[in-house]
Amino acid sequence: MKKIYIKNLDDYLDMDITVDGFIDKIRDLQYVQFLILRDGTGKVQVTIEKNDDNKSLNEMVSSLTLESTIKVTGKLLKNDHVKQGGKEIIPTDIVITSTSLSELPIDIKNKDKALRETRLDYRFLDLRREDNNLLFKCETLIEHAMREYWTNNEYIEIHSPKISGASAESGAEVFKLDYFGEKACLSQSPQFYKQMAMASGFNKVFEIGPAFRAENSHTSYHATEINMADVEISWVNSVDDVMDEQENLLRYVFTKLKDTYGDEIKRLFNVEVTDAKEKFPRITFAEAKSILKEKYNYVAEKADDFERKEEELICKYAEEKYNSSFIFITKYPFSARPFYHMLDENGLSESYDLLFKGLEITTGAVREHRHDILKSQIIEKGIEPDTLDFYLEFFKYGCPPHGGFGMGIARLMMLIFEIDNIREATFIYRGPTRLNP
Amino acid sequence: MKKIYIKNLDDYLDMDITVDGFIDKIRDLQYVQFLILRDGTGKVQVTIEKNDDNKSLNEMVSSLTLESTIKVTGKLLKNDHVKQGGKEIIPTDIVITSTSLSELPIDIKNKDKALRETRLDYRFLDLRREDNNLLFKCETLIEHAMREYWTNNEYIEIHSPKISGASAESGAEVFKLDYFGEKACLSQSPQFYKQMAMASGFNKVFEIGPAFRAENSHTSYHATEINMADVEISWVNSVDDVMDEQENLLRYVFTKLKDTYGDEIKRLFNVEVTDAKEKFPRITFAEAKSILKEKYNYVAEKADDFERKEEELICKYAEEKYNSSFIFITKYPFSARPFYHMLDENGLSESYDLLFKGLEITTGAVREHRHDILKSQIIEKGIEPDTLDFYLEFFKYGCPPHGGFGMGIARLMMLIFEIDNIREATFIYRGPTRLNP
Repeated sequence: MKKIYIKNLDDYLDMDITVDGFIDKIRDLQYVQFLILRDGTGKVQVTIEKNDDNKSLNEMVSSLTLESTIKVTGKLLKNDHVKQGGKEIIPTDIVITSTSLSELPIDIKNKDKALRETRLDYRFLDLRREDNNLLFKCETLIEHAMREYWTNNEYIEIHSPKISGASAESGAEVFKLDYFGEKACLSQSPQFYKQMAMASGFNKVFEIGPAFRAENSHTSYHATEINMADVEISWVNSVDDVMDEQENLLRYVFTKLKDTYGDEIKRLFNVEVTDAKEKFPRITFAEAKSILKEKYNYVAEKADDFERKEEELICKYAEEKYNSSFIFITKYPFSARPFYHMLDENGLSESYDLLFKGLEITTGAVREHRHDILKSQIIEKGIEPDTLDFYLEFFKYGCPPHGGFGMGIARLMMLIFEIDNIREATFIYRGPTRLNP
Repeated sequence: MKKIYIKNLDDYLDMDITVDGFIDKIRDLQYVQFLILRDGTGKVQVTIEKNDDNKSLNEMVSSLTLESTIKVTGKLLKNDHVKQGGKEIIPTDIVITSTSLSELPIDIKNKDKALRETRLDYRFLDLRREDNNLLFKCETLIEHAMREYWTNNEYIEIHSPKISGASAESGAEVFKLDYFGEKACLSQSPQFYKQMAMASGFNKVFEIGPAFRAENSHTSYHATEINMADVEISWVNSVDDVMDEQENLLRYVFTKLKDTYGDEIKRLFNVEVTDAKEKFPRITFAEAKSILKEKYNYVAEKADDFERKEEELICKYAEEKYNSSFIFITKYPFSARPFYHMLDENGLSESYDLLFKGLEITTGAVREHRHDILKSQIIEKGIEPDTLDFYLEFFKYGCPPHGGFGMGIARLMMLIFEIDNIREATFIYRGPTRLNP
């Protein structure tokens, strides 16, 4: 028998059905008992009259605890007096499929009543809230839309290894592990392997997978384990080709998200999702710095990168001038970029950051694919080329010109839904002081 | 300008075009030069007459090395004499975009000429072969078809954490790491977290992601890092519900694979892909053991599990009796199963293995979701329940009856394509003695 979900109940009016769910509410009155059943797709009322025929049902319902799960069999009837969708189930049988303790450690109805850390301790209960359920339905849609875009455009999916024998990229901190007596570490990004796929003639690749950062950061937008969307494409002529690809991808994704869940997101998060229809503006790093100075009278300490405040102001500028929540910043100084970014004739990187609602969500670039120049850029960054031998090998036997970008999914989610902390935009968050559940 | 791939060249006959690719072949004759260009979608001939007008082009072509990449601009002409698709490009310009050393470390045209380990050392070159390119196009399709099935059926995608503070499941070997001074390990499977999602009311979830096994196994079908497809669904009534779901999934995937790449797979791997249209037979463990004894006169040492040879014979039986490459074996003894499988009234597990072409590709089961029984099964397995406190917590506040399964993608690929070793069915293989590239 096909499983019936509550949101589809209208197809079963006046029929005998069986429905499963969590007990969301119980009202045990003098002459009648009401249960509200919840199954992640909706809620429905179950109504049990108190009478002799129902004696055993009545007793059982009186003993039920909130959040227990039950299987209800009965007739679905239209009833305009019922607030919950104008219908109710009159049960002939109720089976308790699991029993909840009567006292829950957090109040799952009210996000504000529990402290964040306690809610994270009991994440499995926290996720029962309607807003969190919607959040992960939306994440599912977002990732599927990305993969649809990629598949429609003949990308190959890769799964790069997460255990790496190679030394850390660009000296940043990595998690180390013992690998059958050898030194190994957890991959910080699929960077080297997606570039390898270019050397393998894969043309265009994508990966959505975990990346690990052993940084002791305690900000609201860092995590030690993140879920990254990565793209690399061959035969690019300029960094505009890479930006075009990301812009097309995001337009496809946001349009789909708005069409499917726009109203629900508005209702539960009070956020108007952009459809990303407007062309994303593209300005150079130098232009951005000059706008910050002239328009906002803001001069930061760092000359080769942005502070958070500057990113916010630039996004404000994009919103006002171009009506866009997105803005590409191009041509960052090489000093702020990793060794593998290609440089133009002025020594500026053929790279970009994409900012969205005040925060950087992507770094993209054309990669240096010429072995000799790549090696000299490694040396310029003060890295011992021997430590990157396995990577340099990829560029010795022909390698297409290529570029790509990476995008952390949780940070994107956090910004779309205007959630103030990445901990709440991740299924299970990992940070320096959080390794559980 | 839209990038032109070689497989689409027929749309551009008699037009001026630009095409990129690797140099697959060079023939430098007295009056003419031929190049074969390869871009992962096909091959095309580039023809350069030797004459005074072409002097600089001719000199450059003479200096080219195989596997270098070039950008060719010129006119595409029909020419029935050309074996490669009856057309050729007459170039006006050729730009070398990367240069290959003249000697390659492996012969990429001929898989047999290079030893496997050497080919794995140079995996980025090994992957340039047509069969490997097809392999990962097919893997892309297979995973996308899975996700289509799941999305069409309203699953939620999860990304469970790969760094875990929980102690190892069922005592098997795990990779350990230091996590800011705390002990942590790499996840062996998303098992606990996909079950957690059930306790969170997510109804149906899937994940495709890495899993890590620190086993010192050197077989042809084990790896230390694998890419797993995992599923968990709520409100199941029996293990048949779980098997139905997996069977429907695989039927959807195999039909799509056969329709899209069946001919290419036949051509390059000499394998006829099944469309999985036949109903997968389902027999119990006890029935299987009795068939092995009576039909094949085979009695193994192990009474509570199968040897490899037994799996092969059962698959032979399924092929002969049911015309199916697949067979479900149900009701394994609890001694061969993990603590979290539900038991029936006879103490047999409500679980199954799915065998395909002689090898197990999946273990699935209904999970024990009742806290008290789960705890007693943990004790029965000799595990200290305290070590699983975080997991047991999921079952205290209501948890739907649920079940699910996991499936290693590389093993599935290996069997579909009849590749004799998992090392060749993985983008980058990781084993006890292989941590590179």
